[in-house]
Amino acid sequence: MATRPRLRDLGIEIGALPPGRLNAITDVPGLRVGHTTLIAGDGPLRVGQGPVRTGLTAIHPHEGSAFLDSVPAAIAVLNGTGEITGRSQVDELGLLESPILLTNTHAVGTVHRAAIEWLAGQHPTLGTRHFVCPVVAETFDGFLNDTIGRHVRSEHVLSALAGASGGPVGEGNVGGGTGMLLFGFKGGIGTASRVVEVAGARYTLGVLVQGNTGRREDLLVDGVPVGRLMPELPTERGDSPADEPGRGSVIVAIATDAPLSDRQLGRLCRRGMLGLGRVGAVATNTSGDLLIAFSSAPSVRVRRLDDAPLLTAPRLADGRLNELFQPTVGATAEAMLNALVAAETMRGRDGNVAHAIPLDRLVALMREHGRLRA
Amino acid sequence: MATRPRLRDLGIEIGALPPGRLNAITDVPGLRVGHTTLIAGDGPLRVGQGPVRTGLTAIHPHEGSAFLDSVPAAIAVLNGTGEITGRSQVDELGLLESPILLTNTHAVGTVHRAAIEWLAGQHPTLGTRHFVCPVVAETFDGFLNDTIGRHVRSEHVLSALAGASGGPVGEGNVGGGTGMLLFGFKGGIGTASRVVEVAGARYTLGVLVQGNTGRREDLLVDGVPVGRLMPELPTERGDSPADEPGRGSVIVAIATDAPLSDRQLGRLCRRGMLGLGRVGAVATNTSGDLLIAFSSAPSVRVRRLDDAPLLTAPRLADGRLNELFQPTVGATAEAMLNALVAAETMRGRDGNVAHAIPLDRLVALMREHGRLRA
Amino acid sequence: MATRPRLRDLGIEIGALPPGRLNAITDVPGLRVGHTTLIAGDGPLRVGQGPVRTGLTAIHPHEGSAFLDSVPAAIAVLNGTGEITGRSQVDELGLLESPILLTNTHAVGTVHRAAIEWLAGQHPTLGTRHFVCPVVAETFDGFLNDTIGRHVRSEHVLSALAGASGGPVGEGNVGGGTGMLLFGFKGGIGTASRVVEVAGARYTLGVLVQGNTGRREDLLVDGVPVGRLMPELPTERGDSPADEPGRGSVIVAIATDAPLSDRQLGRLCRRGMLGLGRVGAVATNTSGDLLIAFSSAPSVRVRRLDDAPLLTAPRLADGRLNELFQPTVGATAEAMLNALVAAETMRGRDGNVAHAIPLDRLVALMREHGRLRA
Amino acid sequence: MATRPRLRDLGIEIGALPPGRLNAITDVPGLRVGHTTLIAGDGPLRVGQGPVRTGLTAIHPHEGSAFLDSVPAAIAVLNGTGEITGRSQVDELGLLESPILLTNTHAVGTVHRAAIEWLAGQHPTLGTRHFVCPVVAETFDGFLNDTIGRHVRSEHVLSALAGASGGPVGEGNVGGGTGMLLFGFKGGIGTASRVVEVAGARYTLGVLVQGNTGRREDLLVDGVPVGRLMPELPTERGDSPADEPGRGSVIVAIATDAPLSDRQLGRLCRRGMLGLGRVGAVATNTSGDLLIAFSSAPSVRVRRLDDAPLLTAPRLADGRLNELFQPTVGATAEAMLNALVAAETMRGRDGNVAHAIPLDRLVALMREHGRLRA
Repeated sequence: MATRPRLRDLGIEIGALPPGRLNAITDVPGLRVGHTTLIAGDGPLRVGQGPVRTGLTAIHPHEGSAFLDSVPAAIAVLNGTGEITGRSQVDELGLLESPILLTNTHAVGTVHRAAIEWLAGQHPTLGTRHFVCPVVAETFDGFLNDTIGRHVRSEHVLSALAGASGGPVGEGNVGGGTGMLLFGFKGGIGTASRVVEVAGARYTLGVLVQGNTGRREDLLVDGVPVGRLMPELPTERGDSPADEPGRGSVIVAIATDAPLSDRQLGRLCRRGMLGLGRVGAVATNTSGDLLIAFSSAPSVRVRRLDDAPLLTAPRLADGRLNELFQPTVGATAEAMLNALVAAETMRGRDGNVAHAIPLDRLVALMREHGRLRA
Repeated sequence: MATRPRLRDLGIEIGALPPGRLNAITDVPGLRVGHTTLIAGDGPLRVGQGPVRTGLTAIHPHEGSAFLDSVPAAIAVLNGTGEITGRSQVDELGLLESPILLTNTHAVGTVHRAAIEWLAGQHPTLGTRHFVCPVVAETFDGFLNDTIGRHVRSEHVLSALAGASGGPVGEGNVGGGTGMLLFGFKGGIGTASRVVEVAGARYTLGVLVQGNTGRREDLLVDGVPVGRLMPELPTERGDSPADEPGRGSVIVAIATDAPLSDRQLGRLCRRGMLGLGRVGAVATNTSGDLLIAFSSAPSVRVRRLDDAPLLTAPRLADGRLNELFQPTVGATAEAMLNALVAAETMRGRDGNVAHAIPLDRLVALMREHGRLRA
Repeated sequence: MATRPRLRDLGIEIGALPPGRLNAITDVPGLRVGHTTLIAGDGPLRVGQGPVRTGLTAIHPHEGSAFLDSVPAAIAVLNGTGEITGRSQVDELGLLESPILLTNTHAVGTVHRAAIEWLAGQHPTLGTRHFVCPVVAETFDGFLNDTIGRHVRSEHVLSALAGASGGPVGEGNVGGGTGMLLFGFKGGIGTASRVVEVAGARYTLGVLVQGNTGRREDLLVDGVPVGRLMPELPTERGDSPADEPGRGSVIVAIATDAPLSDRQLGRLCRRGMLGLGRVGAVATNTSGDLLIAFSSAPSVRVRRLDDAPLLTAPRLADGRLNELFQPTVGATAEAMLNALVAAETMRGRDGNVAHAIPLDRLVALMREHGRLRA
Repeated sequence: MATRPRLRDLGIEIGALPPGRLNAITDVPGLRVGHTTLIAGDGPLRVGQGPVRTGLTAIHPHEGSAFLDSVPAAIAVLNGTGEITGRSQVDELGLLESPILLTNTHAVGTVHRAAIEWLAGQHPTLGTRHFVCPVVAETFDGFLNDTIGRHVRSEHVLSALAGASGGPVGEGNVGGGTGMLLFGFKGGIGTASRVVEVAGARYTLGVLVQGNTGRREDLLVDGVPVGRLMPELPTERGDSPADEPGRGSVIVAIATDAPLSDRQLGRLCRRGMLGLGRVGAVATNTSGDLLIAFSSAPSVRVRRLDDAPLLTAPRLADGRLNELFQPTVGATAEAMLNALVAAETMRGRDGNVAHAIPLDRLVALMREHGRLRA
């Protein structure tokens, strides 16, 4: 995956704010990401045998257990034709009590159950004194992948959860993003981050997307209608019947170490929507565009085993949130474009092909429109 | 299960409106219910071995496939500490595209995946041209059941789905309700229905609950504080650590053959909340109290294979909905009480016991308060 | 107004928890209530001349200015066919930044504008550096009152705001409740409170309702179907055309000095809905049933002039909220019944009459059903 | 106002879809718009005397009365720090029952009351048999206008309502937009439309905005960061204290003659948010960004006087909504830019000046970036 550059390597910068060290969601201290990537087989779809082009991505909000130390969180919906489990509970308690797992639409159940088993292995009271409603979200990779076959298995979930780490985050055809399409090109996982200073304190805001949405003609790169200007290289439909264009979806995970309340995190989610808009998303009818935001600041975590009747937490004054809103828009847009730039051409079931966006053409178009960094 | 009478058999009537023929959600024409009940083992909890006190309940909205002929639907949340998958999609499209499945909290994933496999078996385009986000809801049976063991399996889901039928509906310790507690007594599945006439047309409204909520002292039966007056027979905690009282949840499914829009069905859900209030529910902190309502009127269904650009559907005028609101309150309350009355004493993991409500005491109390039918 | 007893004076108690000293929303320290009651004229409706049976009620959340020291707040909707202005802002910021004003449906605008003028008189930056979206809610008194005439005037709003005080709260035919009907009897303003101890700390929860909802046959008093048992004394329609039964509405204001976040206050609102359910409300089609809750604890207020980038606030752990949920249900129900019991028979426009509930009959029915305090 | 060209006159086109004949919301058949523009006085602010830079804009959804023939509608909130009255009722009934009125923040009450009086003048049952909760929305013009003085009066509302008509719509410094700022330039009212064909039927979608949001540096014109490239001509603050940048708000009204349900209109609102994102909006902390959408198709209207128990309405299949989503994004963006382009430099209270965007500089920048129509 490392053979392709990232967006900034091409000289394209989204917004004026500086990214974090890795320009990744893992710039948020303690946050860990793990991918399981499943690629196997070729040729015609035989349900249960493949081809397999899928996987899952796990996000631990911090260095510990989100079950023991829950974090303030919020979920928002731009277009609801998708799944994010755990939503009612996040709404009600304003807390994320599990890792976030991203996978394909039809593996949600398998991943949900495996997440519970993994949590139960670590927390023996789970199942008797405690229950958990994990957060599992999805996009649909049926253009390339055998989604009905039982290819995502319990052990894949455990390995993504156990193997998650800080540091650089794989992008493109990895994890839950393995078989995804973005603006008619190959898509998948992308990430970006921003560092901001609010009243002398330094905060990081990171975004990770599983990008599988949009029609070619909608794509905007820093305002340039790259999609309309690059009609060549259409997605090839092998032997498969025509699919509705733009049927995909996108999941956006927004993380920060700024101390925010659940309500304020909902506000970040809505700026994530604007970030999707910046790259041209119109949230087509079947595109499940779902967003989750959380704050991993130690000062706002809620300890399960702490029986204190009164919790005290700091939060940024709402008047200061503008300083996070703009980076949320920018980092969401850049994460989407990083997914696009990182993803390599992939051939999947029935000979269907999703092409990588041609980077030379992209750079040329940006130069023509005066949008390359000098 | 048939050895215990239903609420009306005891001379207790909720509201003045007549129930349908079976006083069950299956009075709604075409609607089918299936239970898989899993009871095995005894003694101390050994995760993976049992004891098992759980199951699942499937509701097909009509005689056909909800995937092919979707029905207008809405979901509402009284207290969100629970799971109902498929919610974002129901919100967005106003449609229920799958059966509704009720199970225990930690079996949601297994049931979700199995439901997809069952649907894929029937609909070959699922996985390539189509995807599905099934509706699976849960309450927590960890007081009696080994919730972490893999006791709910794919074949159990398929058999509940395939075996569902019209006719009388099992209540109490069956299906998803097998291991549930209600107001400190044994609870589980309950159902009720009402028949109403609106402007000369006859409509049926049915409710099915998976009842697992409430503290003893909160229980109201037709306004009589039966719970406070019946302190004897406490739930016995065997060797298990004390649990928070009232940790349970309740799922309410409301069905009707009246032609209603998704928005109007959301209105019914909020009256279902008032029905829960009538039996004393206060929606305690960890009680996931979730409601789903749908209309199975043939005239409002949306055919997946129909490519018509324009759909035309009737709906009752909102000014007539009062005639459905009152029955929704009443049928929800009665379904809760039917669950309570039907459930028999059950001993589960670690010797924990949930006692059936003593029917003779119940009848005596209702008589004392002048609330028995003459 | 003082000639009629309150519910507890009749020997009827809702729930086991003790009320505050006044059993009123003003038991919450610092909270102030003011009424302006407008009663004038008789006979046939002449728009602009009367008869006048209306008014407004002002609630200051604490002893100071809610504009300068805003309080965490939430608004919830059981049935939305009514108005509560300021809702979008309360949702977004989780703050109440103005007094709460209750009036009749068609006086909302007048009251809204007058509230701004009153605030501008006190806060000179309002209009240039600051703006305000005050909270004004309403129910409809058109059965008795000339709602189109300009009877509610700016000075009435200013006097309710300026004259508000702690201490006993007028109930029944006062303030915004002057011309309201409740369960087919005369209704209006009612209030109640509860004192609870959470982990050694003592908190007060108070409720004030402007009650104008419900059909006679729906009324429940502590579970007894008093409405069905008291069919006599129908509301008299003088020369007016028949109105839809149960067209009214109810506004519920819930106040507490427990430190709660905006999210938690939303949870209280949903228990207020259950309290409405306890007195038999079914939230009929045109009944705008709207709830607002706020915490006036000094530790959670947000100071407008404080420029601190970081706010720190305590909140009760969600696991302790059950201790506030039950009192919210009970105090809401009791406030509704206090409104009913306090209101005296009133004749309004066109000879329309709303009868007071006959207290002797009420007491007799409660005795028959074994529900009077010994 | 007619001296400045519109966006397309400058050779700038947003999206590929054709606008309607007037490129205005009034391209939707029957829809009528009326403005009252209030400009008076100069110099230092003297509350009650001026300077006055404000007004109001009225939108009648169709050629008749929205009170008698209500239209399906939905409201959505991108950032809630603003007011739109009538929201609870639109949510609950899915209907708009009044004209939409746009004004300044502190005139909402006056306009609300006047709208009721105007409606009562036309509909004699209003006040006794019927009530109304009109839709009034606002943005804040306190930088230029005396918002506390009573400058918006009842007669101004009546004249905007009575004088509304089809045909060309005034843009820029007119009506509710008179004193507004947009991206640090002078802003105000803007409009645009699109014509689409869905399955052989031709539909019009129109948008009108009252634009008062955004910071200079955020402005994007068809993807070009015009705001960052045009730092000259800062908004001049005369003697007034510094204001928070980007404090403003935006109201978006979306109208169509395509037959849509209330739920589907909510979907359009969320695409309107993406349209705001396209011009660079980040929805800053105090920017109340509120959207309302309605369908005026005769076939979906609800007649108040029609007592039919069953209503039947067509709606576009959700699968066809993509054909409206893209135009909603584009027309919203273009309406914002039309407001910007139309507005002329205005000096208001205390010598504060909002400059018009320099059109020659705009055109030059667009040319430099290769975005002018050939």
